[in-house]
Amino acid sequence: MDQSNRYADLSLREDELISGGKHILVAYKMKPKAGYDYLQAAAHFAAESSTGTNVEVCTTDDFTRGVDALVYLIDEASEEMRIAYPLDLFDRNVTDGRMMIVSFLTLVIGNNQGMGDIEHAKIYDFYVPERALQLFDGPAKDISDMWRILGRPVKDGGYIAGTIIKPKLGLRPEPFAKAAYQFWLGGDFIKNDEPQGNQVFAPMKKVMPLVVDAMKRAQDETGQAKLFSANITADDHYEMCARADYILETFGPDADKVAFLVDGYVGGPGMVTTARRQYPNQYLHYHRAGHGAVTSPSSKRGYDAYVLAKMARLQGASGIHVGTMGYGKMEGTADDRAIAYIIERDEYQGPAYFQKWYGMKPTTPIISGGMNALRLPGFFANLGHGNVINTSGGGSYGHIDSPAAGAISLRQAYECWQAGADPIEWAREHPEFARAFESFPGD
Amino acid sequence: MDQSNRYADLSLREDELISGGKHILVAYKMKPKAGYDYLQAAAHFAAESSTGTNVEVCTTDDFTRGVDALVYLIDEASEEMRIAYPLDLFDRNVTDGRMMIVSFLTLVIGNNQGMGDIEHAKIYDFYVPERALQLFDGPAKDISDMWRILGRPVKDGGYIAGTIIKPKLGLRPEPFAKAAYQFWLGGDFIKNDEPQGNQVFAPMKKVMPLVVDAMKRAQDETGQAKLFSANITADDHYEMCARADYILETFGPDADKVAFLVDGYVGGPGMVTTARRQYPNQYLHYHRAGHGAVTSPSSKRGYDAYVLAKMARLQGASGIHVGTMGYGKMEGTADDRAIAYIIERDEYQGPAYFQKWYGMKPTTPIISGGMNALRLPGFFANLGHGNVINTSGGGSYGHIDSPAAGAISLRQAYECWQAGADPIEWAREHPEFARAFESFPGD
Ligand SMILES: O=C(COP(=O)(O)O)[C@@H](O)[C@H](O)COP(=O)(O)O
Ligand SMILES: O=C(COP(=O)(O)O)[C@@H](O)[C@H](O)COP(=O)(O)O
Repeated sequence: MDQSNRYADLSLREDELISGGKHILVAYKMKPKAGYDYLQAAAHFAAESSTGTNVEVCTTDDFTRGVDALVYLIDEASEEMRIAYPLDLFDRNVTDGRMMIVSFLTLVIGNNQGMGDIEHAKIYDFYVPERALQLFDGPAKDISDMWRILGRPVKDGGYIAGTIIKPKLGLRPEPFAKAAYQFWLGGDFIKNDEPQGNQVFAPMKKVMPLVVDAMKRAQDETGQAKLFSANITADDHYEMCARADYILETFGPDADKVAFLVDGYVGGPGMVTTARRQYPNQYLHYHRAGHGAVTSPSSKRGYDAYVLAKMARLQGASGIHVGTMGYGKMEGTADDRAIAYIIERDEYQGPAYFQKWYGMKPTTPIISGGMNALRLPGFFANLGHGNVINTSGGGSYGHIDSPAAGAISLRQAYECWQAGADPIEWAREHPEFARAFESFPGD
Repeated sequence: MDQSNRYADLSLREDELISGGKHILVAYKMKPKAGYDYLQAAAHFAAESSTGTNVEVCTTDDFTRGVDALVYLIDEASEEMRIAYPLDLFDRNVTDGRMMIVSFLTLVIGNNQGMGDIEHAKIYDFYVPERALQLFDGPAKDISDMWRILGRPVKDGGYIAGTIIKPKLGLRPEPFAKAAYQFWLGGDFIKNDEPQGNQVFAPMKKVMPLVVDAMKRAQDETGQAKLFSANITADDHYEMCARADYILETFGPDADKVAFLVDGYVGGPGMVTTARRQYPNQYLHYHRAGHGAVTSPSSKRGYDAYVLAKMARLQGASGIHVGTMGYGKMEGTADDRAIAYIIERDEYQGPAYFQKWYGMKPTTPIISGGMNALRLPGFFANLGHGNVINTSGGGSYGHIDSPAAGAISLRQAYECWQAGADPIEWAREHPEFARAFESFPGD
């Protein structure tokens, strides 16, 4: 069936759709299967993503047509298509009228991922009008809360030196807490690695009291506040709450220093929302492990890392991993700066859309994945600032001298970049930074 | 760093790993980036997916090495690698000691999806030992519960003729309930389309009472029981429960005829578990909209549709969509039979592993996506049986005469296949089936 009449209107103007404020706009790279007309495939895609299917149905009425998604722009040469989705298409909470990311995903990147006439389609940007922004949770806490606890300025408070407890798995409670203590002697922030939770060899109820003790001792010895990001990810909502409640109670007077880490990509928006809504006093740390299955540049489906980060801000992540922009061990390029900018700024020109956030709190870019002191100065130069949380696992526990020396080397790397100094020169005066060169040869 | 000594042991025998029962085994198609050695990349992949990172860390101890994931098989020519993950790696609930899919995903298909030395990797099968099976929820209800309500034999109760309310979106409450009523006059089972929930033009609290009324009238007129699968997907656990509770209360004496639909792929395991654990008396309908972003054969990352279905059974889905195996509008081939067999049988030889389910309830294959009466006989012949739920949206509401005629034509198609009859002959005696030929020309 040719649906291009109904589901496409190339006379629609993007600026009018934006000023109208009644549509979510989505920009895709889309390629039809061989032999299919571009506009027809695009229109069928919009149909399957809103009010249609592959045949005409007798139940369609005039009202229905009023909420059709419409293809408003195609560029066959660059395999680009843009679709306007009326706000009314999206499911809203019965309990509080708010919008939800799961409904956004179901519509804009749902069944259209398996259609017989589409070779592949991937979202590279989307636009959310002001009214819809008001209906998403957004972050409850942000990096300024971390800075406040650390005694730093709450504006431009700068670099937070963090780590991931390594090895990823296999540490029993005592060595786990020892690893935390050792890092905290030099650094600010520690997170559970993304699979660490309640392993039989490291039960949470044995580990956490020891971590609290390690935090107290490190705080006493350094005179500085320390932060811990605890993994509460679980299939079951009540399990997540049981973990979260236990952790807050165990940290007691230091509970404000606890962030909650959620494996948000593999866990999904339900787990993120449990952390966001049940624990609005805690910093919500969105770990994106697994996202590469769709966000990798070599995948032509799903959505990219920019889109994932933008969705995370809407859902209320206080911080999300944004990769290392080519400076670490994971995939990424210098241009991934955009991923940080869209989540930390009040407005930003993305690859397709200029997005204003209308006062929604920022989401911190978390820099992680093979990062170490030697790689940081170049990273900061590329990003243009250092207001980030950085977690270096190997970069701390792989430092020749000690995790504390690893932590100190990270801060020195930040100061090196701040001072505009040459790293080799800087190393002369900063022994931990110097020893990073021996720890990570080849970097 | 060369990790192949530590994270690979090609002398390990798969049969011994299986009889040992202490590992989850995962088979991947994996391709390293150009210039990387296959075994070294595979070993690095196993490291990043268990106890390692890209550098040696000082915290590693002997115990840690005991829970390393190990590459035990590679075949460079077919780009195949298999990894054994010790059970102890996986996070377990604090509250009840059970396993969770989110931890499985985080480890076996987490960070390894974005590694700098891996071109791509995709899971095509995995094996779960008996002890781990015992620790997953599995289905609470299955197709035999539907058959019982419909008054059919609870073993081999046969085909359940269903639909999706169409159009996908845009129906207001009255036309929505009318569409349901019309289908129920001829068919058994209706589901919300995957994005239908609480749209402003069709508030759930207006729609559901009318659906209940439609069900009552259809039951009275036909003398048959009718089934409804209600979408309770939402970001917020409490919103899901509010929807579920409202629906059960509204259906009242017919509440056992209600299934709960969850958009499990985009929503994630947390949402699935909310439905599974909070509502063990309801049939759990797993809609997989969006899965094509990773499961499509054209994607070389994530996991395939067979793996998705197998995970859904572990999580406790009563039914999950398995596609139409090349007979409908979505991607798929005749060989996708395996996706149905692994979830409905007590044991099955998958592409890599022979899996016994040790009494875990089956998950119904739900057949949907451009399916209609003309396409069904071939579909059944390929599958070899008709013990499925089939939801045909266009195939019902696109039938020339009426949705009831559409529904009847579906059942006639099943009977045609059962009788081993020629469809053209069958059409002579079965007018609704005959009119399907006019409704869906070219099929
Ligand atoms: O193991 C990790 C970092 O450890 P290490 O510092 O030893 O590399 C991961 O958490 C990655 O950060 C995830 O990647 P993204 O941050 O890109 O999501
Ligand atoms: O719209 C649908 C079916 O409607 P119609 O019958 O009009 O095509 C979807 O729910 C697909 O079934 C999803 O695909 P899978 O079932 O393959 O997941």
